[in-house]
Amino acid sequence: MAGRRLRLGMVGGGPGAFIGPVHRMAARLDDRFEIVAGALSRSLDKSREQGARWGIDEDRLYAGAEAMIAAEAARADGIEALAVTTPNASHAAITIAALRAGLPVICDKPMTATLAEAEEVARAVAETSVPFALTYTYAGYAMVREARARVAAGAIGGVRKVVAEYPQGWLSEAIEGSNPQASWRTDPARAGAGGAIGDIGVHALQMIEYVSGLRVTALCADLSRVVAGRALDDDCNILLRLDDRVPGVLMASQVSAGERNGIRIRVYGERGGFEWAHEVPDRLIQRAPDNSQQILFAGAPGLGEAAQAATRLPPGHPEGLIEAFATLYRDFAHAIDGTPDILDGRLPGITDGLRAMRFIELAVRSSAARRWISFDGEEL
Amino acid sequence: MAGRRLRLGMVGGGPGAFIGPVHRMAARLDDRFEIVAGALSRSLDKSREQGARWGIDEDRLYAGAEAMIAAEAARADGIEALAVTTPNASHAAITIAALRAGLPVICDKPMTATLAEAEEVARAVAETSVPFALTYTYAGYAMVREARARVAAGAIGGVRKVVAEYPQGWLSEAIEGSNPQASWRTDPARAGAGGAIGDIGVHALQMIEYVSGLRVTALCADLSRVVAGRALDDDCNILLRLDDRVPGVLMASQVSAGERNGIRIRVYGERGGFEWAHEVPDRLIQRAPDNSQQILFAGAPGLGEAAQAATRLPPGHPEGLIEAFATLYRDFAHAIDGTPDILDGRLPGITDGLRAMRFIELAVRSSAARRWISFDGEEL
Amino acid sequence: MAGRRLRLGMVGGGPGAFIGPVHRMAARLDDRFEIVAGALSRSLDKSREQGARWGIDEDRLYAGAEAMIAAEAARADGIEALAVTTPNASHAAITIAALRAGLPVICDKPMTATLAEAEEVARAVAETSVPFALTYTYAGYAMVREARARVAAGAIGGVRKVVAEYPQGWLSEAIEGSNPQASWRTDPARAGAGGAIGDIGVHALQMIEYVSGLRVTALCADLSRVVAGRALDDDCNILLRLDDRVPGVLMASQVSAGERNGIRIRVYGERGGFEWAHEVPDRLIQRAPDNSQQILFAGAPGLGEAAQAATRLPPGHPEGLIEAFATLYRDFAHAIDGTPDILDGRLPGITDGLRAMRFIELAVRSSAARRWISFDGEEL
Amino acid sequence: MAGRRLRLGMVGGGPGAFIGPVHRMAARLDDRFEIVAGALSRSLDKSREQGARWGIDEDRLYAGAEAMIAAEAARADGIEALAVTTPNASHAAITIAALRAGLPVICDKPMTATLAEAEEVARAVAETSVPFALTYTYAGYAMVREARARVAAGAIGGVRKVVAEYPQGWLSEAIEGSNPQASWRTDPARAGAGGAIGDIGVHALQMIEYVSGLRVTALCADLSRVVAGRALDDDCNILLRLDDRVPGVLMASQVSAGERNGIRIRVYGERGGFEWAHEVPDRLIQRAPDNSQQILFAGAPGLGEAAQAATRLPPGHPEGLIEAFATLYRDFAHAIDGTPDILDGRLPGITDGLRAMRFIELAVRSSAARRWISFDGEEL
Repeated sequence: MAGRRLRLGMVGGGPGAFIGPVHRMAARLDDRFEIVAGALSRSLDKSREQGARWGIDEDRLYAGAEAMIAAEAARADGIEALAVTTPNASHAAITIAALRAGLPVICDKPMTATLAEAEEVARAVAETSVPFALTYTYAGYAMVREARARVAAGAIGGVRKVVAEYPQGWLSEAIEGSNPQASWRTDPARAGAGGAIGDIGVHALQMIEYVSGLRVTALCADLSRVVAGRALDDDCNILLRLDDRVPGVLMASQVSAGERNGIRIRVYGERGGFEWAHEVPDRLIQRAPDNSQQILFAGAPGLGEAAQAATRLPPGHPEGLIEAFATLYRDFAHAIDGTPDILDGRLPGITDGLRAMRFIELAVRSSAARRWISFDGEEL
Repeated sequence: MAGRRLRLGMVGGGPGAFIGPVHRMAARLDDRFEIVAGALSRSLDKSREQGARWGIDEDRLYAGAEAMIAAEAARADGIEALAVTTPNASHAAITIAALRAGLPVICDKPMTATLAEAEEVARAVAETSVPFALTYTYAGYAMVREARARVAAGAIGGVRKVVAEYPQGWLSEAIEGSNPQASWRTDPARAGAGGAIGDIGVHALQMIEYVSGLRVTALCADLSRVVAGRALDDDCNILLRLDDRVPGVLMASQVSAGERNGIRIRVYGERGGFEWAHEVPDRLIQRAPDNSQQILFAGAPGLGEAAQAATRLPPGHPEGLIEAFATLYRDFAHAIDGTPDILDGRLPGITDGLRAMRFIELAVRSSAARRWISFDGEEL
Repeated sequence: MAGRRLRLGMVGGGPGAFIGPVHRMAARLDDRFEIVAGALSRSLDKSREQGARWGIDEDRLYAGAEAMIAAEAARADGIEALAVTTPNASHAAITIAALRAGLPVICDKPMTATLAEAEEVARAVAETSVPFALTYTYAGYAMVREARARVAAGAIGGVRKVVAEYPQGWLSEAIEGSNPQASWRTDPARAGAGGAIGDIGVHALQMIEYVSGLRVTALCADLSRVVAGRALDDDCNILLRLDDRVPGVLMASQVSAGERNGIRIRVYGERGGFEWAHEVPDRLIQRAPDNSQQILFAGAPGLGEAAQAATRLPPGHPEGLIEAFATLYRDFAHAIDGTPDILDGRLPGITDGLRAMRFIELAVRSSAARRWISFDGEEL
Repeated sequence: MAGRRLRLGMVGGGPGAFIGPVHRMAARLDDRFEIVAGALSRSLDKSREQGARWGIDEDRLYAGAEAMIAAEAARADGIEALAVTTPNASHAAITIAALRAGLPVICDKPMTATLAEAEEVARAVAETSVPFALTYTYAGYAMVREARARVAAGAIGGVRKVVAEYPQGWLSEAIEGSNPQASWRTDPARAGAGGAIGDIGVHALQMIEYVSGLRVTALCADLSRVVAGRALDDDCNILLRLDDRVPGVLMASQVSAGERNGIRIRVYGERGGFEWAHEVPDRLIQRAPDNSQQILFAGAPGLGEAAQAATRLPPGHPEGLIEAFATLYRDFAHAIDGTPDILDGRLPGITDGLRAMRFIELAVRSSAARRWISFDGEEL
């Protein structure tokens, strides 16, 4: 937890925002970041309203990201990193501007609204070599990291099957008229081409590749607009092939009435399997071929370095989503401070972001065509 | 539980059999059947060995089903019904012979080895009007029936999504050389065209249609032979459309190492959802749109008539698979005694059987072609 | 499962009975017993009504146990064992009569209504050396036996603490006026000195001693009559010392509203602990000092002989209370057939019965005196 | 979440501390406190080492609480509140000094090492009327507050039974020689008269009274020193009477090998019951008399104001122990800002603290005497 504190600017997170405050709590939790500047809303008044609450000096509250980047660059105590927490459609422009200004970026997922934008971001990352991280929340949980480490170490032998599911129910009714969170997520102009697949399907994809170590090489998607009048999918079910061979299933839904936020992943190998469910996030189930299960808990002495490093409290003292998010921020600080190789490794980065945007595009195409499609974009 | 005791003959169930003894325990549990004759093995010696254990008179132990049907027909106290518990490939011939002799049949699933055979059985059922039931085990559980009744009564509004999964791990290694249960199930000559899909996928299909009240109208299957050298699938993942509209997912696997027998179904509707998992069979989860769950338990006073009738003990006194099976036998007795309309209703019958055999064939075709296919057999 | 079938008579189990039919299903399940005679009710008509349902010859249905014992003794094909399923107050007389007639007895718990009766039964057992078993249901579960075997084998080192709880809620209201099961259980004349402690507390005691291998040597009980007007306790909480040293807690309640039948036991030792809960009876949790848990399931290959012998089905095929009961009956057959040493060992017998009756008496005294009391009856 | 930020000083929390950093994360999470001064260790060097990590100005790091209180009082921007996170034996002196200096105090539990000290603190609170809060962690969980609110609103009728248990296993071995956390907790000079009862039993007591609304009026304790050589109890089991009438059980153990931190409470009433377990803290189980359970989750719309106010994230986004702790800090800010009446109400305060210290003393006496004892101290 050592290391100097970094000065962070935030875009997004104004009054009523959900994910911006999560970024703030997470950034501060381990004392690696201090939020000293913000373009918290496109309304300067609202930006100041929230900034006052957060103790940000009024003269460091801006109406837009570009203004903030420019003004902060001119200060001796200017920001050293940027958090992007706006709706998807503005991610690319803000991120690219920051990277070109030499500012490390930590961006909410999905990376952008379109694949084309994602490719532009990828170019900027490649050209600038400035650290770029994505807050795929679940990658911050200790027991997800334990599963990933154990799979990589061969604990279950070669991977044979992967199932990831992400059921939510909060869009079971057409609430987009009155609920701002629902509004932009169901609007192609702000969310991009993917509805449920873009908002939560990408989490499931990221978890699949993060934990299994395999890559999706083909898919056959079935996207539905269950609630009448929607322009984007609110339910998606996708058959996968990983590394050309391993079968997989990805389900994501925002119309599974009664479900809260139950992302869950199961990875089966030659000699057992792992199961992790967000509903009890400090637990990892390891199944053995003899039908016994070993249940592992965060904080316990038998866990590996990756899980230990992502844990703050002893076993039985639950850490939740804010702490998982904070672990990503802590990693981000490490990446800035000199270990950039953890990006696209334990800390999701540009590769994860780019693959997710391609995945959304391919899933939409596959579903429309009723065809299997390779990750290169060929119909099979 | 009233009603006279019926004289039952059994085919299959010889020494070493798994499902035959389950049929026997189930048939006797509620005192509706007495097993008085058997062709328990193709070896008369083995038939007699098992028959002695079960208290069957030696002169009513036969070397084959046909011999038994003929001999018993000639007795005043001859059998009144037949249980078929052999491997799939012999189901059709035995069943048709029995039906034509006027004997009600209760047959293990899947109904036959091929769709062609299934259609022959269907013709025999249609022509003879003799009761024919299939032991789709999970349809005998009280809480499955409660879910079915509640869905039908509109408890969750219109159904919007169905997910059924059936993971097992016992075929994770190539044990078919030494394990008789594995041997016939992985052999196309005895099992038919489907491996995992034929053995357990049909259970998942039956549960989907039984609980949701919808019918599969299209599918896109991905069948794998994960363990090297297998001639039949040991893992299958299938996208579904039900009633042309509702998305569904069916997963069945016998190579999910560490899994025991975890069949589970989730049905989501406009106003909530149900979840039932075999691992805690006396429990039904009903999710509400407000994110609360109601957990219902077998034997409780608030349950409907269907669940009550399928329960023998007060709440908290677990009933298991044998009792679920016994409920099917009890229903079978009712069907024989004069309420044949429960067949293809609460008691799985010829329609379920025929649909399952068609499903296996379509899934194999769909997977080979990498295409969506309608339940009528057209590629989409 | 081998062995000849034994002819069994039953006392109790008439129309409306709960536990009698459980005995019947259990006795028949493994083909070791055939119920050929019965004094199913003190009304001969009712005895015949139930007997007809069960296929017992009318001339072997009796109005009383004594008549049955005498008449059957005179037959060449007379009963070879007796099941006692009446309310507690009649257990002693029936049991003693049977034992003196040389008939092995399997009796429901608690053994008698009073300690004095229990001591008489114990004398009869000692004098006749005829097998006597008690149906402490939970001792029949495979995973309870696995826990017992593992504790005995030192899997968790020396035992340090034991907690058993048995919450039910069905007597939360004063239903004894209308519910026959509640009526006799709350009536000292029929149930004896113990209410909840006699009906279910003794199960908890038996589980404690059965699994831990230790014996209660002192207790301090707090018995309550929560529902107004009750003559017997309906809630009891008891501090224990086992083997003079090990602390324990026993809770039993019939007024824990909403609870079904949640008996649960936890045994902690120097190097880990076990937990078994009736709500998921095929599962045993073994806790390790490193905070991981190993979850074991009935039917799995890694289990010991005791659990294997108490399992009929593969892992993931739940067996329930009837099967656990059937395991006791199977053991009873073994005890009759020549392995009487399993009595008071894996099969509960006279020692368990006698200790339970003493425990009830001591708990009532301890609670009234508000004092710790030794198992020898001295106040501490 | 509004309100100005308060300047907080901390005593304790130096390098290697467990609970101090938790206080820090919790205090900052909701932006109601900024830690600007500290006497983080009795070694000034260590205080500075930790303070540097936390961004506290070096000149506001002190070697002792008294020095800090005096020096900060002299500053215009001096601290406005004090967090006490040292071992129990120093709580009283620090707290009293702070209160007398007019500084609101938030103190870790148990309040003091002895009852006499607790009474002194109580006098100081009474005399100064300065806000005093205790961090009984579990009182900060949303679903504990929901249970408390529902019980108070009569959701289950009159309370009939309460069971609280707090099993841990981390002191199963005599690690006190090498583990600083174990060292002071097992040392009467630093921990006081209670071992497990003082460290975690008081949490269980607080939960019992907090959720049920009842008060312990008598107890019969059985405290054990399971691990050889201990001077204080490491396992305790206590029979309770609440409001002179309602039976209760309290178990706390630090030698339940394999247990992590499984505090759990069950409250049964006339018309159902509640169960909350720390292992899944965002869940509350409400049992109904019809044997169904309603499962409630934090963040859901149907919850009451108390739970809503203690939740930061939508349902299915787990909050953990740090957030529960933060809720106590948020309440503490409210108490300082003008709603002191929440103290000893939803925010544990002096009354809870005093009762807990008396409880420890009585439990030790009761156990030694093997007697029931009233909360007034009379043997029964």
